[in-house]
Amino acid sequence: MTSAFDAVEIIGAKRDKAELSDLQIDWIIDAYTKGVVADEQMSSLLMAILLNGMNSREISRWTDAMINSGERMEWSMLDRRTVDKHSTGGVGDKITLPLAPLVAACGGAVPQLSGRGLGHTGGTLDKLESIPGWRASLSNAEMLDVIKSCGAVICAAGAGLAPADKKLYALRDVTGTVQSIPLIASSIMSKKIAEGTSALILDVKTGSGAFMSDPKMASELARTMVQLGIRAGVKTRALVTAMDVPLGLTAGNALEVRESVEVLAGGGPSDVVELTIVLAREMLDAAQIKPLMDPADALKNGAAMDSWKAMIRAQGGDPDAKLPVAKESKTYLATSDGTISSMDAMAVGISAWRLGAGRSKQGEQVSYGAGIEIHAKPGAKISKGDVIFTLHADDSARFDRAQSALEGAVTISQDGSVAERLPLIIEKIEG
Amino acid sequence: MTSAFDAVEIIGAKRDKAELSDLQIDWIIDAYTKGVVADEQMSSLLMAILLNGMNSREISRWTDAMINSGERMEWSMLDRRTVDKHSTGGVGDKITLPLAPLVAACGGAVPQLSGRGLGHTGGTLDKLESIPGWRASLSNAEMLDVIKSCGAVICAAGAGLAPADKKLYALRDVTGTVQSIPLIASSIMSKKIAEGTSALILDVKTGSGAFMSDPKMASELARTMVQLGIRAGVKTRALVTAMDVPLGLTAGNALEVRESVEVLAGGGPSDVVELTIVLAREMLDAAQIKPLMDPADALKNGAAMDSWKAMIRAQGGDPDAKLPVAKESKTYLATSDGTISSMDAMAVGISAWRLGAGRSKQGEQVSYGAGIEIHAKPGAKISKGDVIFTLHADDSARFDRAQSALEGAVTISQDGSVAERLPLIIEKIEG
Repeated sequence: MTSAFDAVEIIGAKRDKAELSDLQIDWIIDAYTKGVVADEQMSSLLMAILLNGMNSREISRWTDAMINSGERMEWSMLDRRTVDKHSTGGVGDKITLPLAPLVAACGGAVPQLSGRGLGHTGGTLDKLESIPGWRASLSNAEMLDVIKSCGAVICAAGAGLAPADKKLYALRDVTGTVQSIPLIASSIMSKKIAEGTSALILDVKTGSGAFMSDPKMASELARTMVQLGIRAGVKTRALVTAMDVPLGLTAGNALEVRESVEVLAGGGPSDVVELTIVLAREMLDAAQIKPLMDPADALKNGAAMDSWKAMIRAQGGDPDAKLPVAKESKTYLATSDGTISSMDAMAVGISAWRLGAGRSKQGEQVSYGAGIEIHAKPGAKISKGDVIFTLHADDSARFDRAQSALEGAVTISQDGSVAERLPLIIEKIEG
Repeated sequence: MTSAFDAVEIIGAKRDKAELSDLQIDWIIDAYTKGVVADEQMSSLLMAILLNGMNSREISRWTDAMINSGERMEWSMLDRRTVDKHSTGGVGDKITLPLAPLVAACGGAVPQLSGRGLGHTGGTLDKLESIPGWRASLSNAEMLDVIKSCGAVICAAGAGLAPADKKLYALRDVTGTVQSIPLIASSIMSKKIAEGTSALILDVKTGSGAFMSDPKMASELARTMVQLGIRAGVKTRALVTAMDVPLGLTAGNALEVRESVEVLAGGGPSDVVELTIVLAREMLDAAQIKPLMDPADALKNGAAMDSWKAMIRAQGGDPDAKLPVAKESKTYLATSDGTISSMDAMAVGISAWRLGAGRSKQGEQVSYGAGIEIHAKPGAKISKGDVIFTLHADDSARFDRAQSALEGAVTISQDGSVAERLPLIIEKIEG
């Protein structure tokens, strides 16, 4: 039985809209991970899956096969229940930063294995790496030490966790096969299930700045992931949340750390605070943890900040160090009087990316100081010449393309009207 | 402008059912040929094309881009009109062998650039290479010498002819992206147009033993190719012909050469003779050649045989040499009295392939003596114990799997009835 023969047969089955058998799925994921099935064979299968779909049995088996390609973590040695959160990514979405220590302060154990950013949304690890000394890569023993001592750990997923997904993710990125609900759902859930959390809250973003801009598709993705989690014994819920307008007032690595610290200090933008508290309550509830205190109180009384500082220090970082600041900055001014009616999240995300906050391909260096500060959001009354954005970059040559991304991103009404917005929490999905 | 960015954009367009622009098609074929676009990117695009299609403008541009990836041959130095034939491949389809010298004998010039076989249908070059001494690879100068002196040349297409298609063909073979009318039509026609023939007859096979088993799909493929030929200034016609039952009484390399020589000697199986003559008349007519004699006469009076022998000798072969014979043989007997009602072409093709006549992947060696002799075809009355097939192989270990492929391939009726067959010539398509 030659590999080419089997791969072509499996590709042909999905191309011809047949269901893949459990054995076929197990074989192709294993053979691809080992390099027996070639990238060019897997990518044509991925395109066939994207266009012809997979049913819930196939998605579930595909996810299991990816989990089985590597190790599965286990946290029964902890005296607290584990609970994690995953966001599908949005512009200015720094929620993980205040959320993990907040849930730890309230009594949960948060083993948050995160990734780096690609495209217009930032990655949690890129943000935290802007803190001087902070290390993303931990051994399993170090990870356990941090979560034991601090209640939360945010670090890079090791190479042993769902290696099939790592290879597939890199392949999908260059072959136009990202936008598939079965492939997105299995990618996210294979990592989260392998991570060994007992409960999981999914924050599925929708609106112009999200990968799933259509709320119906976001809802379908959320449902698919919740099913996968529950089938695997993880208490899983999903919130579909708004990403039509940037979250908070910053987009960029160090800029978002600064804003997160403001939230942990009891301040910060109201949308970031609200979403952080809502997600924290869901996490505690899903994991059936009796909270030591309410998350809103933990932000006010310093408990969440204490967890944050302990967690950053445990990974070599200095929570009190000065954060990197970009070398150059430039303001973006209002061109008329009026009320900000809308602000396109995608445009702000692309602009921050072009300023150097994000990467275009894997392995690229990001600029920690680069990004955008937002001084006024929809509903704000402004006068001509007011600063709407401050752009930050290490190289002033980046301003032109970053500014052009913002063209038309902000609309200003003369009559005080504001464009309709998505509610912050659109839908809640439980198994 | 990075390559990954452009390739992903083009893949995304076809994935989302958009038309590809002329510039996009030119760029991706050129970049793929040069190795700037990776195999895994091209294969996901090929799957998107297979599933979402291309319109006639896109197919035409795709074909042109493949032609432009290499050299374009030119035959204006000949004092005869050029005309070629291409078959989409079938079991026992050896027609090119008698046809090229036959058309030469009748006044045409036949520049037949052929390929090797892959899968259950044989390749013209594999068959001819069973003749001791015969060489498939010729320089352009040698090719011109042979066609000038013999009126026909059958040889391997050089590496300079549509190199994009060579790379794509190998990729499609391992990525499940063969079965696409736009991709099949552009692959065949790019080579035939680059070959520089002034007229072309396409023999599009349909029925169980053909790649296009559905006659409607075969007809669509034929129409697509005729349009491509005519747009490129080649006088192109297509015949859709039967491949439900093997053509002639042999499937295998040397076995088919022997049968072709019988046809050139004025004998041979009636279906091979009929199709050879029909195609020869079409070729002469399409090229507007006033024939020196009718093809049926040229088979009877030795003129076609003279052309054949001259052509084989001009390429180093000995037309009178003994052909290779396989070391082992085994008979396949009728298990009851009756009338042969049907004989599945695909089963016979797969059996011959398993005997060693074909290859499973590019570059594999074929056995020249291996294959199947057919002693009785549908309509023949037989008695239990009569020999229906003789299987030939160099290694007797191959007989078991070859015989199992033939299981159920022959049905025998007790009442003398014969299953309905496709007519030999199903449809004729002119521009």
